[in-house]
Amino acid sequence: MSSIHEECGVFGIFNRNREHDAAQETYLALYALQHRGQVSCGIAVRNDQTVDCITEPGTVPDVFNKDKLAALTANGKGDVALGHVRYSAQGEEDEINSQPMVMSYEKGSISIANNGALVSTAKLRQKLESNGSVFQTNSNAEMIVHLIARYRLNTQNIETAISQAMRELEGAYSFILMTPHKLIAVRDPKGFRPLCYGKLGDSYVIASESCAIQSIGGEFIRDIKPGEILIITNEAVYSNTDNCGQKSAMCIFEHVYLARPDSVIDGASVHRSRLNAGKFLAIEHPVEADVVAGVPDSGIDAAIGYANQSGIPFGLGLIKNRYIGRTFIQTTQKQRERSVQIKLNPLGNEIAGKESCLLTIQLSEALPAQSLSKSSGMQAQRKFI
Amino acid sequence: MSSIHEECGVFGIFNRNREHDAAQETYLALYALQHRGQVSCGIAVRNDQTVDCITEPGTVPDVFNKDKLAALTANGKGDVALGHVRYSAQGEEDEINSQPMVMSYEKGSISIANNGALVSTAKLRQKLESNGSVFQTNSNAEMIVHLIARYRLNTQNIETAISQAMRELEGAYSFILMTPHKLIAVRDPKGFRPLCYGKLGDSYVIASESCAIQSIGGEFIRDIKPGEILIITNEAVYSNTDNCGQKSAMCIFEHVYLARPDSVIDGASVHRSRLNAGKFLAIEHPVEADVVAGVPDSGIDAAIGYANQSGIPFGLGLIKNRYIGRTFIQTTQKQRERSVQIKLNPLGNEIAGKESCLLTIQLSEALPAQSLSKSSGMQAQRKFI
Amino acid sequence: MSSIHEECGVFGIFNRNREHDAAQETYLALYALQHRGQVSCGIAVRNDQTVDCITEPGTVPDVFNKDKLAALTANGKGDVALGHVRYSAQGEEDEINSQPMVMSYEKGSISIANNGALVSTAKLRQKLESNGSVFQTNSNAEMIVHLIARYRLNTQNIETAISQAMRELEGAYSFILMTPHKLIAVRDPKGFRPLCYGKLGDSYVIASESCAIQSIGGEFIRDIKPGEILIITNEAVYSNTDNCGQKSAMCIFEHVYLARPDSVIDGASVHRSRLNAGKFLAIEHPVEADVVAGVPDSGIDAAIGYANQSGIPFGLGLIKNRYIGRTFIQTTQKQRERSVQIKLNPLGNEIAGKESCLLTIQLSEALPAQSLSKSSGMQAQRKFI
Amino acid sequence: MSSIHEECGVFGIFNRNREHDAAQETYLALYALQHRGQVSCGIAVRNDQTVDCITEPGTVPDVFNKDKLAALTANGKGDVALGHVRYSAQGEEDEINSQPMVMSYEKGSISIANNGALVSTAKLRQKLESNGSVFQTNSNAEMIVHLIARYRLNTQNIETAISQAMRELEGAYSFILMTPHKLIAVRDPKGFRPLCYGKLGDSYVIASESCAIQSIGGEFIRDIKPGEILIITNEAVYSNTDNCGQKSAMCIFEHVYLARPDSVIDGASVHRSRLNAGKFLAIEHPVEADVVAGVPDSGIDAAIGYANQSGIPFGLGLIKNRYIGRTFIQTTQKQRERSVQIKLNPLGNEIAGKESCLLTIQLSEALPAQSLSKSSGMQAQRKFI
Repeated sequence: MSSIHEECGVFGIFNRNREHDAAQETYLALYALQHRGQVSCGIAVRNDQTVDCITEPGTVPDVFNKDKLAALTANGKGDVALGHVRYSAQGEEDEINSQPMVMSYEKGSISIANNGALVSTAKLRQKLESNGSVFQTNSNAEMIVHLIARYRLNTQNIETAISQAMRELEGAYSFILMTPHKLIAVRDPKGFRPLCYGKLGDSYVIASESCAIQSIGGEFIRDIKPGEILIITNEAVYSNTDNCGQKSAMCIFEHVYLARPDSVIDGASVHRSRLNAGKFLAIEHPVEADVVAGVPDSGIDAAIGYANQSGIPFGLGLIKNRYIGRTFIQTTQKQRERSVQIKLNPLGNEIAGKESCLLTIQLSEALPAQSLSKSSGMQAQRKFI
Repeated sequence: MSSIHEECGVFGIFNRNREHDAAQETYLALYALQHRGQVSCGIAVRNDQTVDCITEPGTVPDVFNKDKLAALTANGKGDVALGHVRYSAQGEEDEINSQPMVMSYEKGSISIANNGALVSTAKLRQKLESNGSVFQTNSNAEMIVHLIARYRLNTQNIETAISQAMRELEGAYSFILMTPHKLIAVRDPKGFRPLCYGKLGDSYVIASESCAIQSIGGEFIRDIKPGEILIITNEAVYSNTDNCGQKSAMCIFEHVYLARPDSVIDGASVHRSRLNAGKFLAIEHPVEADVVAGVPDSGIDAAIGYANQSGIPFGLGLIKNRYIGRTFIQTTQKQRERSVQIKLNPLGNEIAGKESCLLTIQLSEALPAQSLSKSSGMQAQRKFI
Repeated sequence: MSSIHEECGVFGIFNRNREHDAAQETYLALYALQHRGQVSCGIAVRNDQTVDCITEPGTVPDVFNKDKLAALTANGKGDVALGHVRYSAQGEEDEINSQPMVMSYEKGSISIANNGALVSTAKLRQKLESNGSVFQTNSNAEMIVHLIARYRLNTQNIETAISQAMRELEGAYSFILMTPHKLIAVRDPKGFRPLCYGKLGDSYVIASESCAIQSIGGEFIRDIKPGEILIITNEAVYSNTDNCGQKSAMCIFEHVYLARPDSVIDGASVHRSRLNAGKFLAIEHPVEADVVAGVPDSGIDAAIGYANQSGIPFGLGLIKNRYIGRTFIQTTQKQRERSVQIKLNPLGNEIAGKESCLLTIQLSEALPAQSLSKSSGMQAQRKFI
Repeated sequence: MSSIHEECGVFGIFNRNREHDAAQETYLALYALQHRGQVSCGIAVRNDQTVDCITEPGTVPDVFNKDKLAALTANGKGDVALGHVRYSAQGEEDEINSQPMVMSYEKGSISIANNGALVSTAKLRQKLESNGSVFQTNSNAEMIVHLIARYRLNTQNIETAISQAMRELEGAYSFILMTPHKLIAVRDPKGFRPLCYGKLGDSYVIASESCAIQSIGGEFIRDIKPGEILIITNEAVYSNTDNCGQKSAMCIFEHVYLARPDSVIDGASVHRSRLNAGKFLAIEHPVEADVVAGVPDSGIDAAIGYANQSGIPFGLGLIKNRYIGRTFIQTTQKQRERSVQIKLNPLGNEIAGKESCLLTIQLSEALPAQSLSKSSGMQAQRKFI
């Protein structure tokens, strides 16, 4: 299951009266969402009917410097801005799929930043092509816009077109649209991926995770509901809930792996979820140990939960190298084996000195906090369960 | 009149039996077309149904290195390849308009490399959008493909669709299309921009100028006729001439300024055209002078023609700096004034020593070879006419 | 006091019988030392009498890729290699001071990687210049080599020259020299900066911190003693201890701030030192709180120590953004103020929900673990002491 | 004989009262010298006792942009500036040998830009090392400065030290030195490489070729004499001629190949030299032909000379591709063979149409204008002599 590769981060701001520098706020918010994707990033800014957009491979600090942020402000501080950080599956590192995507259709410009992975797209694409659509990428984002553009030909407003288009989309999607007058947040009916909104002064912001809103000094309002279309205009904020009501299928990986611990998703603190995973593990699988440690990063929170519940002191067991990037080179089999050691170095002598028994907790896909290993002086490290 | 800014260079190869390295031949041919555009360039290669494409800002040697050519050969030596060098009007230096553009429609992939400038595009774009089309650029190339894709829905083959689409296109266009089984050359009915084809071994090549065919060792066959659609498949080479027959309006700038002197366009040698411009100038405007020189580059040919007709010896009068690129920096007014001197330095003392009278010839838009200036020892330089 | 800016990381390997790929091992070890400097890095490799060296601005993954590592291996797997990561004080970000520096003198090539900051260098430089020395940088490393080269003219071997040179050097230095036949580790008599060595198979390695030795699978042997010169040749490992015996003045910042917690410096585990700082703080300054948290990164260890001593549970209070690099842009005062929030985001609602009292511990220069702050629901955050 | 690879271009300006922007003028002058080296370039600027220097691989437009020129002006408009463009022999493309080199010695900073190739350097280097010198490169420039620094210890002024040092230097050198108060031009006693000076307003400029002085609007004064040391200070311009008087051995390649036709070297116009080579060839080797053409670039001038002398009309025979850079890729033998065709394309049909006989002239090392080839309709191309 490759769903873990579908993660991205999205952000949007409706910059009322241009009170902020929209590109700058988006840039700062993308920093807070960087953990959701390091392959490419981009920012699109609309000033009246002009849209400027920069997308490039690399992390936020790789791509954006003073000059590029200035270029995005050349036409004004921005009525609306859109940002995206992208994780990519193998073989999709091409620049052409970078987002936000800026397009134009009958009603003017339309830009999209999406997080998700549609299923059964071949049939939908074929249907669009048989009506004359021409595609330039394989991305879901492009197909979503084409579909909305088709429905828009016969609807009164874009939210109705989106609502109708959603009935043809299967799978996970949380996207933000920037149109000539609106900023729109859309979350799939099962709510696979997170999306929330908040306030920043008199302006509104939309983000994949609440930590992005908090980090720029904004105020979290609430999650976008599964199936909801939230429309922000200069006069109002309102919702279309035609597609709401399905049972949520929020991806467990968000809480286990992906989201930042300081985010709140669908009403639950990610940090609290991980603490609880550790707590329940301590109740279900009590072990005797001198220290309980976590595999960074998400295992740390769970280990604290286990420690608090069990009374075993929490300690550091593995030091994560913060500088190992995607360019880490492993030329031989030996080096591949060694790479784990480069990334995670055990605090060996600390444990060894105490002849202590270390309990290590790692959060994983199959079951949160399922993996425990116990070591005595680092000599013997074995699976507990 | 900004038509001089619409120049680009295009090249395509139908690589029979993969006898050549299609990307490599395209790379070499683009070198020969580099004078037609230095802003960006790109190569797209098709192997079976896989199309790989690299486009980037910069000249051919800036963009393509060994690694990138190897990347284009990763899926094979190429059944077909397409290349493009781009000149850009002010404000259009954006990467997003780079070509070749690779798209997909109902019948599979379709890639385009275009040289030209359509007129009256707004209405056509509106018509396409009102049928649901979504655009990602402002480029003519994208619009042409959308239009063809629409017509293709109701035609037996792509050449018929192109033929019908051409009736809706106004202005200058010379483009090459790469489809799943064909390589197609299309020239507008007035033949504003050059386009020709030739042979390279058992393979066929298409190029903006014959010098590109000659420089890779190919054999020039003939110009694509104004209005002609030339289709190259694995089995045959044939034409659709539905749109032929209009009076040609070949752009005079091609012969005056843009094309390479070693190209033959619509049956006339560019070098010969310039020689003749100088010859006729000598007949119409005879002057007394010791030396006749030309303003590089196109003025050189005309000066030789003037010299041959008049009997005045040809000489070098101005040395062109071959290294002044688009990044030449002029921070002050003084430097801007000086920039001409940096680019073109007079062979001063050479003339001064002889107390000679220099006749300088420059080819220009309004009238080929209209501008003559005569100088005595470089002290006095004045317009002759 | 700017001594915190003088940090760098050094690494060397004497690759007996070329059993390893010396450049590759150095590359991996520099990853483990990356926290000591992100401004530039470099690797020099000696094969017989040929030295290849690459130094560039940037982190290890920024600078080194497959091609560059291959280039360093072009002349062989390396008899010896030297690596360096550099932190730089303001205004010294120039490439020219990058290390390792590769030079040549009467006895052949000599390369240096240094961590430290000499004092009173003007007089020494003047003395060298009055004897004809020519300098190309302001770096201590260049001056050290010049001084050794002078003494070497009248000594039997390089270690004697180093020993004599050390009497003229004042301040902090821990450097590694690579000569045609030796790898030499030198630590100043007060031992300001760490330096240690170990084994990797039959080869020897030298590093600023033990974590680098451990991370490449080596075996830590011991610290280089203050004042010691350790010489590694193909036949032997031996020491010159002429300058040993002074009282150590190991820089407290190493344990407080700079070193990795999984390193052991001068016999003490860095992690253990930080735990103890927290433990002693708990004894000296007991407070009532629901949770004790640390300011990342070094405050985490101290907070665990405080928690273990006090019985107050340890918890996460601040989430550090791992992607904020040196290019972080703050264009306005407001953004500068906000930058702390971007870097460290409080786990707000977690605390708020519990109405708990959070004790935050931050390690700082003046006094390890001196800073405590207590907050109630994040509304009131005030200094405790 | 590889002397053709030793070419570089140097430029210096003594910017009296900072009337100009010294970095900007140097940048413009380097453009005019670009033909002397495209491998790397650099500019050093002195403001009072601060020297800022940027050197990088690449051509002038590759390396210098607005930001870099601004960085060189950060400390003022410059009292003196020094520039260098470098050609490099195979295997010496390393950045470390880039010039200008900025060093410091007993009397303060000393920067050098050199064009030349010393012979018998091993002994000199050994002598310097046996007195304690430490080298960081293999470049002649570094050794020259070391030698001058040694002599300066016992001389009253730097020109005397240079004069004494010159007696130990064998081979070709034309260099410019920038010291705390002087700008100094030095040319070896045989005058192998060109060097001249001129005026720009109240300021003085030194350059490898007069075209650089002319191109920035300066006034050529005269060549630096073989063996001359020309010293420019704020108060005076004077010479040391201790080493003058030897028979000049000006490199013939300068006139044949390297220099720009609009330069005057040692009293002779380069263009005139080439015209004369053609003229003498016409006298010594008269041939019957319809057109006489030259192999670009230097053969063009010679062909004009031949045409003028013989009465045979001058014509263009080969078109040189102006965009073939150092990155031209030739992956197969076939492509290597083809590369000449890519670089020089014959104006085939032009000749063929006339059934004319073309005489092609190429300047070469062994004998200027020695190579003639005659072709009939391009079918038969054979050596004439």
